[in-house]
Amino acid sequence: MIRVHHLNNSRSQRVLWLLEELGRPYEVVRYQRKANMLAPSELKRVHPLGKSPVIEDDGKKLAETGLIVEYLVARYGPDLAPARDSDLYWRYIYWLHYAEGSLMPPLLLKLVVNRLGLLGLPARRFVDAQLKLHLVFLEAELANAPWFLGDRFSAADIMLSFPLEVATQRGGLDQTRPRLMDFLARIHARPAYRRAIERGGAYLYGA
Amino acid sequence: MIRVHHLNNSRSQRVLWLLEELGRPYEVVRYQRKANMLAPSELKRVHPLGKSPVIEDDGKKLAETGLIVEYLVARYGPDLAPARDSDLYWRYIYWLHYAEGSLMPPLLLKLVVNRLGLLGLPARRFVDAQLKLHLVFLEAELANAPWFLGDRFSAADIMLSFPLEVATQRGGLDQTRPRLMDFLARIHARPAYRRAIERGGAYLYGA
Repeated sequence: MIRVHHLNNSRSQRVLWLLEELGRPYEVVRYQRKANMLAPSELKRVHPLGKSPVIEDDGKKLAETGLIVEYLVARYGPDLAPARDSDLYWRYIYWLHYAEGSLMPPLLLKLVVNRLGLLGLPARRFVDAQLKLHLVFLEAELANAPWFLGDRFSAADIMLSFPLEVATQRGGLDQTRPRLMDFLARIHARPAYRRAIERGGAYLYGA
Repeated sequence: MIRVHHLNNSRSQRVLWLLEELGRPYEVVRYQRKANMLAPSELKRVHPLGKSPVIEDDGKKLAETGLIVEYLVARYGPDLAPARDSDLYWRYIYWLHYAEGSLMPPLLLKLVVNRLGLLGLPARRFVDAQLKLHLVFLEAELANAPWFLGDRFSAADIMLSFPLEVATQRGGLDQTRPRLMDFLARIHARPAYRRAIERGGAYLYGA
């Protein structure tokens, strides 16, 4: 059975949700953030970087959310992605890379700049401008369809959920971007999403 | 012909190198960083986020380095990746996601913290510890083989080149990690790497 090493209030929540959408049985090993928000050191026994998510499947240990989503969908749920020989497939892979490679970094910067308080002020304008750029881009992407690949829900939507949820807390995402807010409302209403929250434990960023 | 929108001293240098390794003809459109190091606004006419690299191929516009590498290798150079039905394939995809999703964010943080000068000091210990974690991990990955997938050079090595090169400038990578430094020396000696530098223009992080 697939085992998911899951850190509370983290990017690994998406992996639980994906497995629920796939209808795959899985086991959750839970880890709790320390008071300083960092991952506990026990995660270093799972993977040298000590981050979450890590999954175990079929004798393999896999880290990095984008890879995990790409792997699980290819192996267990090709219906959650476009056909490999279509142009849309590359759009799907784009979103898997974009979510952590481009959208999360300014959200991480924002967290650090916020923690610096007044000391971080000189960097705030730059970080806020970057975040706005992404939100404008993403809002426009939903102009003609409810999901990031068009009319069909896909694993790209699951991948983008976490940074967008985090953006409502510290990235400036609010009702001035109604399509993104509707997107979040739609995913939060999915039964598989709700079941994943039950399996993962209290989730700061969910509905 | 493939067109690459290339920003000097940036992650897009890898795309030129990959195309040289593939032996594909390509056209380079060059952009120069502004005095504040940000990308010039002309890149916004290519892609709404205004970042580099973006490539154009066969009527498609593709952004995000990890996606571009995955796409170009799948389409034009499967020899630079393991076979799709092997476990090593997922290790390859892991590195594509890891380079930008996990290794670049602390390097970006370091840049911002450095620019804050004394104001950034409270964040420096956290950032330096994150960077060290990655360098220890990567040095260990090269303990038994010269390349990140083992005995055979692959596009994973190309993907990891940029963050490792940046790490020599601001991430604390030096001769105390001899395997990583040897890795950089080996890639910098490759004829395709040299040709890519000629096509891309002066490159701050190369040899």
